[in-house]
Amino acid sequence: MAAEGRWGLGIDIGGTKIYVGVIDRSGKILATARKKTRPELGFEESAQRIISTAHEAIQTAGLTADDIAAIGIGAPGPLDLEKGEVIFTPNLSWKNAPIRDRIVQAFNKPTQLDNDVNAGVLGEFIFGGCHGVRHMIGLFIGTGIGGGVIIDGKLLHGFNQNAGELGHMIIHPKGPLCGCGNHGCLEAFASKLAIERMVKDALRRGEKSQLSRRLKEGKRIGSADLAQAYFNGDGPVCAAIKSSARYLGIGLTSYLHIFNPEVVVLGGGIVEALGSEYVQMVSKVVNKNTMPIALRNVQIIPAVLKDDSVILGASVLAWQALEQQK
Amino acid sequence: MAAEGRWGLGIDIGGTKIYVGVIDRSGKILATARKKTRPELGFEESAQRIISTAHEAIQTAGLTADDIAAIGIGAPGPLDLEKGEVIFTPNLSWKNAPIRDRIVQAFNKPTQLDNDVNAGVLGEFIFGGCHGVRHMIGLFIGTGIGGGVIIDGKLLHGFNQNAGELGHMIIHPKGPLCGCGNHGCLEAFASKLAIERMVKDALRRGEKSQLSRRLKEGKRIGSADLAQAYFNGDGPVCAAIKSSARYLGIGLTSYLHIFNPEVVVLGGGIVEALGSEYVQMVSKVVNKNTMPIALRNVQIIPAVLKDDSVILGASVLAWQALEQQK
Repeated sequence: MAAEGRWGLGIDIGGTKIYVGVIDRSGKILATARKKTRPELGFEESAQRIISTAHEAIQTAGLTADDIAAIGIGAPGPLDLEKGEVIFTPNLSWKNAPIRDRIVQAFNKPTQLDNDVNAGVLGEFIFGGCHGVRHMIGLFIGTGIGGGVIIDGKLLHGFNQNAGELGHMIIHPKGPLCGCGNHGCLEAFASKLAIERMVKDALRRGEKSQLSRRLKEGKRIGSADLAQAYFNGDGPVCAAIKSSARYLGIGLTSYLHIFNPEVVVLGGGIVEALGSEYVQMVSKVVNKNTMPIALRNVQIIPAVLKDDSVILGASVLAWQALEQQK
Repeated sequence: MAAEGRWGLGIDIGGTKIYVGVIDRSGKILATARKKTRPELGFEESAQRIISTAHEAIQTAGLTADDIAAIGIGAPGPLDLEKGEVIFTPNLSWKNAPIRDRIVQAFNKPTQLDNDVNAGVLGEFIFGGCHGVRHMIGLFIGTGIGGGVIIDGKLLHGFNQNAGELGHMIIHPKGPLCGCGNHGCLEAFASKLAIERMVKDALRRGEKSQLSRRLKEGKRIGSADLAQAYFNGDGPVCAAIKSSARYLGIGLTSYLHIFNPEVVVLGGGIVEALGSEYVQMVSKVVNKNTMPIALRNVQIIPAVLKDDSVILGASVLAWQALEQQK
């Protein structure tokens, strides 16, 4: 009998890039590979690119496909977890894309699919700063706001497997329009796009910012640009980031009342760029507004895995798939 | 060996009354008893009243304490579930009250304590309209708004066992002051107290209502009074109840995004008094605002157990306590 593979494969499918890691049970990354997703070429072509990126990572690790025990995939949702399909996603313009089947056809290993944000939260939960924790929520503040929830050690999926849309809690029904079509979602108040919108509004009111020219030229502003302007004391940027932190603190207050987690992990581009300064601003609002019982011994901490959170979480999905197979 | 008791005891401890039921595994209530809580006499006196109410229910059922297999208790929180204590509650002015110990001392049976709202939600989940459901949330719209969450068949408790405070999601940071000290909680927009406040505000603006006199005399307005005025087309009351339903719909939209439950149960005085009219108003807002994936095959239904929801849910806690003992 052939020995069972000892390594897990974690696959992170993003709108622009595919990122694959060969990872052991302890979360040690042996090798990685990257390719552009090129979703405009259609699902089947992207699926081939994902498979070849996976082979590349395996080769870079000095292994063969036989050394892989199981595979986990993080992909943007909404997903159909039972069928292993991406139902639809604006970033990739796929519809009912059977990504799990394609990976199983290529590698014939136990394979589990989950939402990319869930995978990232699971990565932080298992390999980040959550040792011994059973109840945790994660929020990633980037272009949008993604979230995931761990209850008693397990990801919350809900009835249609699409729970944990933590960016789409309405925190002000007359607030700004959100990408989802509602007004006043947390995402519309605290994401990078929300911060950019607030800075642009300030410029329209005649305020000055070191980002004025780039914004007027329609250039994209990165989280690092915002952080630099913030630490330079740029008026509109400071105001927008403080507003983002305040609303995130209000949203988190509600989440502590709703979930009563032990640990809240904050990640994503904005948190990475601004660091503990941002986490402290958020914590201050939470500490002021949350009921004492929901705050007792609760920690709000920054994510630590950065770009590797999804592949690491996907490797945990891989081990879960292996367990289920047994 | 003596045969094990076949009946469960469900105890509902409220601010004004104690309500106890002798209940079988199928949720059939054999007998009940009621007494005033009299919390002003202190915890030990109330505990004795609870114990004597329990004995009364057992006698009314034609049984003795030996026939009782286990006991469940629903009490207002926050609670320490491990110690079996009421930590503190404004309604009862108890502090660190060891209610589970007192019941164990009196009956020597497996005994489990939980939040009264959780017990009510559990009652609706097991004995209400949730057959075959695994993911459910319950909201009780009364003087305040209480909530409970069932995930994969189990009550959500969280790290400090105080999750599920669904009335304290902030849905408008500049909204009315809530009893919890924050501004703009769901409870401050949609509870009976919020409806009363809106009616009073309308009167202050010179509008007329059939409840004007009672409100001016400082009399308490019941849910039935509000329902009657609503169905009579009373202007301020109709506006206030529509506003309550609208904000509840906004809050529920967020909860569908957060939990993606299969069933939402709406109960409490306001829902009982207004019936399907209110549930439909809420559903309309939810259907308009919720992402399709979080809405697919989701039902919003009225609670059915009325005043018995807590004792029935507490009987489920009793059977859980029995299982754990084994």
